[in-house]
Amino acid sequence: MEKILLAHGGGGVLTDNLIKEEILNKLGNSLLSPLEDSAVFSIGNKRLAFTTDSFVVKPLFFPGGDIGKISVCGTVNDLAVSGANPRYLSLALIIEEGFPMESLKKIIGSIEETAREAGVLVITGDTKVVEKGSGDEIFINTAGIGVTEYNHTLTLSGAKEGDKIIINGYIADHGISVMLQRSGIAVELPVESDVAPLNGLVKDILNSSNHIRCFKDPTRGGVAGALNEIAIASSLGIVIYEKDIPVRKEVKSACDLLGFEPLTVANEGKIITICADNEAEHVLSVMKDHKYGRDSVIIGEVVNKHKGRVVIKTSIGGSRILERPYGENLPRIC
Amino acid sequence: MEKILLAHGGGGVLTDNLIKEEILNKLGNSLLSPLEDSAVFSIGNKRLAFTTDSFVVKPLFFPGGDIGKISVCGTVNDLAVSGANPRYLSLALIIEEGFPMESLKKIIGSIEETAREAGVLVITGDTKVVEKGSGDEIFINTAGIGVTEYNHTLTLSGAKEGDKIIINGYIADHGISVMLQRSGIAVELPVESDVAPLNGLVKDILNSSNHIRCFKDPTRGGVAGALNEIAIASSLGIVIYEKDIPVRKEVKSACDLLGFEPLTVANEGKIITICADNEAEHVLSVMKDHKYGRDSVIIGEVVNKHKGRVVIKTSIGGSRILERPYGENLPRIC
Repeated sequence: MEKILLAHGGGGVLTDNLIKEEILNKLGNSLLSPLEDSAVFSIGNKRLAFTTDSFVVKPLFFPGGDIGKISVCGTVNDLAVSGANPRYLSLALIIEEGFPMESLKKIIGSIEETAREAGVLVITGDTKVVEKGSGDEIFINTAGIGVTEYNHTLTLSGAKEGDKIIINGYIADHGISVMLQRSGIAVELPVESDVAPLNGLVKDILNSSNHIRCFKDPTRGGVAGALNEIAIASSLGIVIYEKDIPVRKEVKSACDLLGFEPLTVANEGKIITICADNEAEHVLSVMKDHKYGRDSVIIGEVVNKHKGRVVIKTSIGGSRILERPYGENLPRIC
Repeated sequence: MEKILLAHGGGGVLTDNLIKEEILNKLGNSLLSPLEDSAVFSIGNKRLAFTTDSFVVKPLFFPGGDIGKISVCGTVNDLAVSGANPRYLSLALIIEEGFPMESLKKIIGSIEETAREAGVLVITGDTKVVEKGSGDEIFINTAGIGVTEYNHTLTLSGAKEGDKIIINGYIADHGISVMLQRSGIAVELPVESDVAPLNGLVKDILNSSNHIRCFKDPTRGGVAGALNEIAIASSLGIVIYEKDIPVRKEVKSACDLLGFEPLTVANEGKIITICADNEAEHVLSVMKDHKYGRDSVIIGEVVNKHKGRVVIKTSIGGSRILERPYGENLPRIC
């Protein structure tokens, strides 16, 4: 009998297959089926975005953040990359019996602080408790509503030949921070999660150019997963340059040690921007002025070959296909 | 060190204290703090309602429904009782490794069927998988967006002296159905959950009268919990008549056997309507014309004494205070 595997939750090909075969074939509709980060629809005279995410990250507290911060940022960022201003969140807790009240207080404090920074309000919620052994400390779901206030049509299928690919800084920090914390491996330089609300940065980017094609937050599946989604949706190819991809030395070392490719490791404060070639330098300079964009770089471009594929040009002059991760390399990373 | 108890999830006084002390004191705002079933707010020229619920019901399948059906109905009903037409749902799954794909198919099928009946679309979703032993089969969160298309101001504080209290049929079916299934107790007459989407019934009620004060769905905490919330919010008293409260014979027997008070047992297809005295009979007749309202009855009224309290007049002529449940009498009932 077929069973759910951990790999079905990895954000890779297996997750995709599960969603397409078991969920979209029954529940699919024009808003759900494109599987964008948020569903965007009109109510009255407004365009709204709606998204949801459950968070099962383990451990709950890690350098640079905790499950509370990530629960706000994950949903805020999914709204932001759809071009919406995040406004309202729901907050639903599934708590395991015996969970320390002190930890709950810390998590709620972190939610409050992050929601304040992002300018969103938690306006509805739910609390369930399950018996000891039936959960794992705490799981959090947030859903979010945003209002789209721009005329940009942002869609993963909107990438065009020649467009530049920009990322707002160092990759793989979140995944490696959580994995190091979980493994107990002692490292010389601590790695902090990049978890951050990116709606302010996205707003600046949208104000800077009328030729932003789309955004994508490279969470589960990492930059490799995100770029493959864009290549497939736009039926074009993507080329990126290894030498331009920002990876901290300590993250690179940890990846070598743990056997991970940094491009497939989850980020929680990164955004990939696809924009027209002739505006890329301007967009880049605007991004560098934002506190979550100081280390922004152009890492590649959209090309009219390798359709539906991502090619990485290596530092030693070679090139290889950057595959979409298949299953779960980092369980419970968000 | 203080820890979370199962009772913190029971929907009673302990849940209330947890939410007020740990959540509202940090995250509170004018939309969240009233703790109504949905938050209602304006965007552009529309009034919207937003709500969320996580579902951890055990077992997943029970007579009359399953976790999929309840995941749709719970959120649809929370929107409906706020006077909104439910439109869009999010769907977030937390699945335990090893969960049978066949069960997932059945649950998604049930979600599809119930969403179709309720006239809502699932437009955004998320799937996470946790290791075997870190969850319990499947937990589901839905959040929902509805549009309020009525001029009624529905609020739990809106009850007035003399108002009638109507319920749309037999109470405690859901909780008892689940508990019997879980306990393995063999009973002569099977008890089916009442789980149903009530937005159609609510629409008919709102169209029938301009003097509907509020609705409340008596889920966790049962009718006792719901009526106490209304009494407290309106600073009035509520009197109900034991002889008028519809409880099926087999449910009454099971309650006696298991030691439960039917008025504190969860319902998933019931709605309490508070309406002006002089329109109550008309509203009742409209409710009886709806398939989920055939057994509707008036069970009591709002009085200007016993402030903040619910009094039950017993069949033998006595009366007693009907307390709000304190903690968890039926864990994982929804």
